[in-house]
Amino acid sequence: MAEKRRVRIDLEYMGGRYAGFQWQDNALAIQQVVEQALEKLVNHQVRLNASGRTDAGVHAELQPTHADITTRMTDTELKRGLNSLLPWDIQALDVRTVHGKWNSRGDAKWKTYRYVILNREFPSVFDHGRVWHVKQPLDMAAMRAAAAHFIGEHDFSSFRSAGCSGKSPIKNLTAINIEKTGDKIVLHVTANGFLKQMVRNIVGTLAHVGKGKMKVEQMDAILVARDRQAAGPCAPAEGLCLVGVIYQDDLGEK
Amino acid sequence: MAEKRRVRIDLEYMGGRYAGFQWQDNALAIQQVVEQALEKLVNHQVRLNASGRTDAGVHAELQPTHADITTRMTDTELKRGLNSLLPWDIQALDVRTVHGKWNSRGDAKWKTYRYVILNREFPSVFDHGRVWHVKQPLDMAAMRAAAAHFIGEHDFSSFRSAGCSGKSPIKNLTAINIEKTGDKIVLHVTANGFLKQMVRNIVGTLAHVGKGKMKVEQMDAILVARDRQAAGPCAPAEGLCLVGVIYQDDLGEK
Repeated sequence: MAEKRRVRIDLEYMGGRYAGFQWQDNALAIQQVVEQALEKLVNHQVRLNASGRTDAGVHAELQPTHADITTRMTDTELKRGLNSLLPWDIQALDVRTVHGKWNSRGDAKWKTYRYVILNREFPSVFDHGRVWHVKQPLDMAAMRAAAAHFIGEHDFSSFRSAGCSGKSPIKNLTAINIEKTGDKIVLHVTANGFLKQMVRNIVGTLAHVGKGKMKVEQMDAILVARDRQAAGPCAPAEGLCLVGVIYQDDLGEK
Repeated sequence: MAEKRRVRIDLEYMGGRYAGFQWQDNALAIQQVVEQALEKLVNHQVRLNASGRTDAGVHAELQPTHADITTRMTDTELKRGLNSLLPWDIQALDVRTVHGKWNSRGDAKWKTYRYVILNREFPSVFDHGRVWHVKQPLDMAAMRAAAAHFIGEHDFSSFRSAGCSGKSPIKNLTAINIEKTGDKIVLHVTANGFLKQMVRNIVGTLAHVGKGKMKVEQMDAILVARDRQAAGPCAPAEGLCLVGVIYQDDLGEK
């Protein structure tokens, strides 16, 4: 008989057809699809845990997950088997056996999300479902100045959507990078953790600043308010993608 | 009353949902979708002509077209109106009035297609429908050496699929660029014209060379054979995209 072991499974997915990462009663979630594929391969019930939930419509270029399985299949065989069963919009990038206490969520130290705004008059056929299309020209300098106010350890309650299960609203946001590439404004946000829709609420607020609907000087007051009503609107899911998670191991820590 | 005028309409489209550019009896073509949108705007029958047909599933980042219309709408109003009526996977990038003899097909001097091969073990979720996924590693140096044999004026009958309506199989192919970016092999092919599925047949042949199934030294014999059976297989449509068309005007010629 094979022994039980823990595997780390790095997924990539397009979120457009799914109700987010986490199991839902009435809609198809990525977790369900992957668990069912794994269960077919290992022939026992499997629980897949991820570094964090992603909302409905949000994509992932790298979503680390883990599961405990009992099978004679090697990691490579598992990866091939999974990818042969998964639909085109979910793929396993990597499968490897890890020590039994490794935890995709608990051990995550830093996460980075990318948000892409297409800032031009008309939408792009090729970017459909992958960007937030904003017609009105955005003031990049004002957005960058506003973003600087969010760097550091803050109470991000004003950027926390209803239904958030996170214990503490205090997060350490280490970087917000804002770059322009052609018609696209690309934001990278890195923190030690995120509240529900925190990146989208930050991006929606920065876009309000870019449009001149909010002022850079308001940012500190928004943080202090600890009230979701104080910040700008939530930016749409399709522009958001989880792109990286750094673990204790990666940092050489124990 | 408004006067009749000729407009150039530059389109971009994802070809996945369409039976190609040209009207089909039993399937939806891009030409039909755009003509019907135009007819709603100008309230008379319209014939849309393109720089060339693209096959079912082939994309275009820039497909120049022209049509004769009678309307009081300005070019900008036409562009906005068109884009409000067109589906998400077809958009007008530009609409402008041209002189009455300008011809999107007849005046085209050079066309460039891009073909993208994803060369790695597993497909990519984000490139689905946009690339040809080839698992087996391809020998880039061999592909480049083979491609060099096609540069210049040749009879491309060996790369012409059945049902081609082109008058002459002789085309002047000025460039085949092959670059590697990460897991992707990106080919750009420029010529004064293309036979039916010519780029895809060339790419399929080059991939055969890259896999070692054909030798670089066979390329001249394939051209001389003037027989479709002599060349390699046709590469799939989804990797192909029309990316540029150069006109006499652009060259400062009359």
